[in-house]
Amino acid sequence: MTYDLVIHNGTIVTVNERFDMLPNGLLCVKTGKLERVEALGADQSPPAATETIDASGGLVLPGLVNSHTHLPMTLFRGLADDLPLDTWLNKHIFPAEGAYLQPDNVRWGALLACAEMLLGGTTTCCDGYFLEDQVAAAVDTSGMRAVLAQGVIDFPAPGVPDPKENIKIARAFVARWQHASALITPSVFCHSAYTCSGETLKKAKALSGKAGLRFQIHAAETQNECRQIRQKYKTTPIGYLDRLGILDENTLLVHCVWLDDTDIELIAARKASISHNPESNAKLAAGIAPAPKLLKTGIALGLGTDGCASNNNLDLFHEMDITAKIHKAETHDPTTMDARTVVEMATIGGARAIGLDHQIGSLEVGKQADVVIIDNRSPHLTPLYHPASHIVYAAKSADVRDVVVAGRVLVRNRTVLSLDVEQIMANVCEIADQINKGR
Amino acid sequence: MTYDLVIHNGTIVTVNERFDMLPNGLLCVKTGKLERVEALGADQSPPAATETIDASGGLVLPGLVNSHTHLPMTLFRGLADDLPLDTWLNKHIFPAEGAYLQPDNVRWGALLACAEMLLGGTTTCCDGYFLEDQVAAAVDTSGMRAVLAQGVIDFPAPGVPDPKENIKIARAFVARWQHASALITPSVFCHSAYTCSGETLKKAKALSGKAGLRFQIHAAETQNECRQIRQKYKTTPIGYLDRLGILDENTLLVHCVWLDDTDIELIAARKASISHNPESNAKLAAGIAPAPKLLKTGIALGLGTDGCASNNNLDLFHEMDITAKIHKAETHDPTTMDARTVVEMATIGGARAIGLDHQIGSLEVGKQADVVIIDNRSPHLTPLYHPASHIVYAAKSADVRDVVVAGRVLVRNRTVLSLDVEQIMANVCEIADQINKGR
Repeated sequence: MTYDLVIHNGTIVTVNERFDMLPNGLLCVKTGKLERVEALGADQSPPAATETIDASGGLVLPGLVNSHTHLPMTLFRGLADDLPLDTWLNKHIFPAEGAYLQPDNVRWGALLACAEMLLGGTTTCCDGYFLEDQVAAAVDTSGMRAVLAQGVIDFPAPGVPDPKENIKIARAFVARWQHASALITPSVFCHSAYTCSGETLKKAKALSGKAGLRFQIHAAETQNECRQIRQKYKTTPIGYLDRLGILDENTLLVHCVWLDDTDIELIAARKASISHNPESNAKLAAGIAPAPKLLKTGIALGLGTDGCASNNNLDLFHEMDITAKIHKAETHDPTTMDARTVVEMATIGGARAIGLDHQIGSLEVGKQADVVIIDNRSPHLTPLYHPASHIVYAAKSADVRDVVVAGRVLVRNRTVLSLDVEQIMANVCEIADQINKGR
Repeated sequence: MTYDLVIHNGTIVTVNERFDMLPNGLLCVKTGKLERVEALGADQSPPAATETIDASGGLVLPGLVNSHTHLPMTLFRGLADDLPLDTWLNKHIFPAEGAYLQPDNVRWGALLACAEMLLGGTTTCCDGYFLEDQVAAAVDTSGMRAVLAQGVIDFPAPGVPDPKENIKIARAFVARWQHASALITPSVFCHSAYTCSGETLKKAKALSGKAGLRFQIHAAETQNECRQIRQKYKTTPIGYLDRLGILDENTLLVHCVWLDDTDIELIAARKASISHNPESNAKLAAGIAPAPKLLKTGIALGLGTDGCASNNNLDLFHEMDITAKIHKAETHDPTTMDARTVVEMATIGGARAIGLDHQIGSLEVGKQADVVIIDNRSPHLTPLYHPASHIVYAAKSADVRDVVVAGRVLVRNRTVLSLDVEQIMANVCEIADQINKGR
């Protein structure tokens, strides 16, 4: 039997239950799935395959999962930083979104995001934005895997001039993409409890629930949000969402910086999952989410970069390093958020959080072949004692050499094979020129 | 007149007093110094030069300054992580230092560090370690600029089996390197107030003071250190150092995580400088230094990575990003540690902190030509609105294309010209194999 793809000669970081490492590892892929994941004996050669990748003594890991982002916001990378939140949003981000989010621009921004993510070892993302059909088209072109949600908000938004249409437009998006691609899972994203009415939230949840899809929402991001919700509903954002019947195993809560113990118990009891975005929460000065506490409850916890306007990158290696460090700094406990835990958050944890852990998040027989190869041959990756530490504290997105999604090689020798990256960059620079002139 | 080196066709981020940006910038270098730093008119061509670098629309910045590190600790990168501080030090780092810090190993570790730093845009570092002659030889080979200190501690140490000899050995180091190289400035490094007696500290300070050199010391890094010092000397680490007469404009205090307001006033009044190491302080769970407060006092504040065992890299781009974010997260103020401030810390601030701001830290006529060129042509650096934001929040060490120190091109197209990087990595891997077998 000839495999479609064989990867050998690297150390496989399986991220299975036991976090097994397989030196001189062998991965065999047939029709997009992993058929063999094992250590090859010193005297064994890899089996025959249509395509073979020599991992050159590097590390072979599951593709990284970005559990929260807004892809087209690459257009606004670095447009405005270091500002009070309301100035940043109302004077810079909202006006730029209002003026420049035409469908074409959204697609170019999303294509740029896909190129950046693939080059940095991210094989799956979970997105929520407006004009999400354009995002889906871009992701589809790139060959990435994604959970993609049309955004819902009770204000006029790009592609949704009349907010009364927001649920209808989300429903149409779900219908279009529910069976369109094996790699794209549609979803519904409500911006927040302070920008959507209770009725909108319930309708959106019903829409996603009926289709068995992820319902995403920003929740408990800032102290100000918590104050607003308490004034209006006499409870916390989490308590309010639960009162509406929105917390269940298909709900992904994004941020969750400001939680009390009751909130945490509620989220755990309802089996909702959380996307932890430490860089965005830091940059926007929201605070530091209680991630170590959340992990102890068994809540599915993934890592997310958030959009490029509040990060300013889509780099999960960077996010892993900061995750491991910021919680140690805050708790004064050097053993919290150890490297293995953080690698799990960026892979299987993220897969659980977005509902795809039956397919991805670890390198195990039967799962999808979403694979990243790290090239260790550079000074900052020398020497290598422990692969998990290496991945979190030393490796960077630029060390990703090859990327495979569903058995298809999308990045080879640091080049994206599925996208015309030069063309995408040129188009985004043109859009940025317009934005610059408009300021 | 023909220049030795001309760099053109990039945006110069001068980091001068006004933080001027020079689009279509021109840098002209003669005998290691900057003779012209200006914007070139659209119709002007760059002048003749022995060597010309086209910055290809990238960013041209002053070489980055790493104000605190222990270079040979690259040997222990990732050897032990996520452990309580005493376990980490006493069970892993001290035994490894005791067993493997032979002169040859120290030199290979330092050479690896130089390769990593140069490839990541660091042109100057401030180091303290044992067997520092080997470190100096390595730095000298690399062509980097450095302040290098023989370590002083009242325990047996590599190369100093009898601690009674520690000052003598430091004195000999200073004598050997004080006039040996235009790029190397010797210094004295006392490990800390809890590992050196008052007498040792005073002798070491006298030695460096007499020669007009930097006196470096870890100070106020952990709460435990503060407790120890208070028990013994009834004051803070800073108060104790001041009582010994050690705080002055030639003293560089490293870490300063745990300072009270009196400490901060003392440091400012004595004009001592500080190296801020946020990643190391986070990873070892020491805490978060009050950097925003320190900046307000006018204290010279540089950024440092610390050694590779507690980071685990020597990457100032990474350190800049975390610096900008971690203080926003802690203070809940999104305007603190803005991008310009952080770029200044990594360049002119560091130069001030280590006493070299008359020579380096900004791109201005008369200063040394220590220059870094960032290649913007990749998805994660697209688009570009504000250079300072780009440098802090988007650029990474792997985006450094060319590096110049004192007018000499040390990195060209991401290749180190002054070092045999393959050989260095092979030797360090061999040393790491021995360390692995010895565990």
